[in-house]
Amino acid sequence: MPNPLAGIGETSLTPAPYRSLEWRDGVARVLDQRGLPRRCEYLDLRNEREVADAIRHMVVRGAPLIGATGALGLALAARNCSTTDPEVLRRRLTDAGDLLRAARPTAVNLFWAIDRVLDRVRMESEAEGIRAAAIEEAQRIVHEDEDVCQRLSHNALPLVPEDATIIHHCNTGGLATVGYGTALGVIRAAHESGRRVRVLVDETRPRLQGARLTSWELQQLGVPHTIIVDGASGHFMRTRRVDLCVVGCDRVAANGDVANKIGTYNLAVVARAHGVPFYVAAPTSSIDLAVTHGDAIPIEERSPEEVSRVGAERIPPEGVDIANPAFDVTPASYVTAFITEVGIAYPPFTETLPAHVRLARRR
Amino acid sequence: MPNPLAGIGETSLTPAPYRSLEWRDGVARVLDQRGLPRRCEYLDLRNEREVADAIRHMVVRGAPLIGATGALGLALAARNCSTTDPEVLRRRLTDAGDLLRAARPTAVNLFWAIDRVLDRVRMESEAEGIRAAAIEEAQRIVHEDEDVCQRLSHNALPLVPEDATIIHHCNTGGLATVGYGTALGVIRAAHESGRRVRVLVDETRPRLQGARLTSWELQQLGVPHTIIVDGASGHFMRTRRVDLCVVGCDRVAANGDVANKIGTYNLAVVARAHGVPFYVAAPTSSIDLAVTHGDAIPIEERSPEEVSRVGAERIPPEGVDIANPAFDVTPASYVTAFITEVGIAYPPFTETLPAHVRLARRR
Repeated sequence: MPNPLAGIGETSLTPAPYRSLEWRDGVARVLDQRGLPRRCEYLDLRNEREVADAIRHMVVRGAPLIGATGALGLALAARNCSTTDPEVLRRRLTDAGDLLRAARPTAVNLFWAIDRVLDRVRMESEAEGIRAAAIEEAQRIVHEDEDVCQRLSHNALPLVPEDATIIHHCNTGGLATVGYGTALGVIRAAHESGRRVRVLVDETRPRLQGARLTSWELQQLGVPHTIIVDGASGHFMRTRRVDLCVVGCDRVAANGDVANKIGTYNLAVVARAHGVPFYVAAPTSSIDLAVTHGDAIPIEERSPEEVSRVGAERIPPEGVDIANPAFDVTPASYVTAFITEVGIAYPPFTETLPAHVRLARRR
Repeated sequence: MPNPLAGIGETSLTPAPYRSLEWRDGVARVLDQRGLPRRCEYLDLRNEREVADAIRHMVVRGAPLIGATGALGLALAARNCSTTDPEVLRRRLTDAGDLLRAARPTAVNLFWAIDRVLDRVRMESEAEGIRAAAIEEAQRIVHEDEDVCQRLSHNALPLVPEDATIIHHCNTGGLATVGYGTALGVIRAAHESGRRVRVLVDETRPRLQGARLTSWELQQLGVPHTIIVDGASGHFMRTRRVDLCVVGCDRVAANGDVANKIGTYNLAVVARAHGVPFYVAAPTSSIDLAVTHGDAIPIEERSPEEVSRVGAERIPPEGVDIANPAFDVTPASYVTAFITEVGIAYPPFTETLPAHVRLARRR
C-alpha cells in the first residue's frame, strides 16, 4: 500500500514507512489506526481533549503508544496554557492528567507516563520552567520508547530458535509503540538477525488488530506469516510444530499476572497444554508493582458494537446481549518469562520483576 | 424478526417458527442459513446437484442436517430418473451418492445417510421399488433426526444443574439438524424442563454461526444468553462460575477423538484447565467406528475469504496468507462424556461408543 506520507518525519534507527506518533510543530500527529490497512491517514491532535478522545476511540492503541500519546497530551496542555502563574499551570496539568487517565483504564503505561511528566514538573517553580519541563519530559518518553523496544526485542534473541514458528496475538508492533514494537519487535529482531521465522497471526477478535495491523506490519517487514482465527491456535499446536508464543501486555502485576488483549489467556492455557513456551514482552513501563495480583487490574468493558459490527455489517440479531471485555488476565504461572528492556525475567517473578524495574530506572 | 413463512410446513412435536429442511412435493426445501439472522429465506432444491451445492456453500450446515439433506439429494435423484431399468437407476443413485459425498469431507453424517439409503435400495430388484425405497428411506432419515435429537437432549438433563451457566460453540440447534438440535437441544431441554440456564455463546469465527444462528435460536426459545468472542471463554471460566461446556460434533472416531468446528479444541483445553466438564452431543450417526482416531479424520480447508471478509468488509491487507481449517480434533481425553440418543457414554470410549452404536441400531 503506497503511503502518501512516507518519508515525512524523523528517521528512526530501523526506518519504517509509517510513524505511529510524532511531535510536530506543537501538535501530536498520530496515524489513525482505525482505517488500516485500507487507509493510512494521519490526525493532528491539538490539545489534551483530542488526545484523550484519540486514545478512547482507539485512533491510537497499544499500551506503550497510549502512554507516549498521553504524555504528549500533557505537553499540549502545557503549551496551550500561556499563564505566567505556576499554580494555574500546575492545576491545568493536573486536570489534563485526570482527563487523560480516564480515557482507558487497563494499560498502566498511560498512568506511568502521566505520572512521570507530573513528577518532573514538580521540580520547577516558574511557569516557564514547568511548561518547558512538561514538553521536554513528554518528548523524552516518546523518544525513549523506540529505544526501549529495540533493546527489549534484541534481549529476546536467545529465546527464538532457528527456523521458528511463532504464534502472536493482537498487535504489538511499530503501531502499538512509538516504533519497533514489543512482541512483534521480538519477531522483527529475530527476522532481521537472519533467523528464519514464520508467524501464525491470531486475527484477534473483536477488533481484529492481528488481521488488520499485525499482518500489515509483517508484510512490510517481509516476515512470512499466516492469519488464523483465534480459536485455531490449539489446532496448529497439535498438528504442526509451534516453537513459542509471544504477546505484549497492558499491565503486569507485581506477582507476574498479565492483563493483555482478550484471548491472551486462552492462548496461554493452550500453549501450556502443548509445552509451548509463552513469553510476554513487557517494557518496564508496563509493570505495575503497586498492583499485587492480576485480579486487582481493572478490565475495560468496551462497546458491544465492537463485537456485533464488522465495518458496515451487523452480525447478530437485534436486542441480543453481548459481553466485550477488552482484556483478560493470564496468571503468572502460565508465563514462561517476561522480556523487558533490561533482559529476561524468569520466575520467581515477585523477585525478578522488581529487579528489572529497579535496573531500568537506574539507566 | 418476523418470519414471512411462519406457520408453513408441518407441525413438529415442539414447534419452531422455521424449518431447516423439509420434503415438499418432491423438492427439498431448505432455509438458506447464509442470510440469517437478517433474511429468513427458503430455497427449493430440485436435484442432487443443487443439494450438493447447497451443502458445499453452507446454505445448509450442521452435521445432522447435512446428512438429512444429502439423503434427500438421493431421493431427488431417484424421483427425477424415470427409467424402468433397475441397473440404470442404481447407477444413477451411486453417481448421485458420489457427487453428494464430495460436497464436504469432515461430517460423517453425510456418508452415513448416503450409505443408509444406498444399502436400503440394494434390497429392491425393480426400478419402481428402488425409487420408492430411496425416497422412503431418505424421508425416514429426515423424520428420525428430530426424534433422535429430542431423545439425546433429554438424556442430558442429569448433567445440567439448576441455575447453570453453559458455554456453547458454533451452532447445534434446530438449524444444524432437522429439528430441536444436539448441544443446543441439550440447552433447550434443560430450559424447557424449568432449570434456569444461561448460555455464553461463542461467536465462532470465521463464519460466526454462534453470533448469527445460535443467538437467533436462543432468542426465539427465550433462553438468556450472551455472545462472547471465542477467545474470551477462559476469561469467563476464570472470573465467573461456568458449570459446563457442551458442543456438537462432525465426526467422532472410535477412540472418542472428536472433529468439530474450529475452536472446539481450544475450548476443551481451557475447560480442562478450569475443571469445567466438557460434553459432546453426538447422535450415533456422527460416530464413525471405522476411523480409529481423530487424526485420520479429513479436516476441510475452506476458502480464505471466510476469514478475510465479513459481509462486504475485507479485513486484512491484500495478498496475505490465511489458513482456514474448518474443523479441529479434540482428543478423547478432553471429553467428559458423549451424549447420544441412547444415553450418556463415559470413558472408556472404545467400549461405550460401540455399545451406543449397537443399541441405536437395534431400535
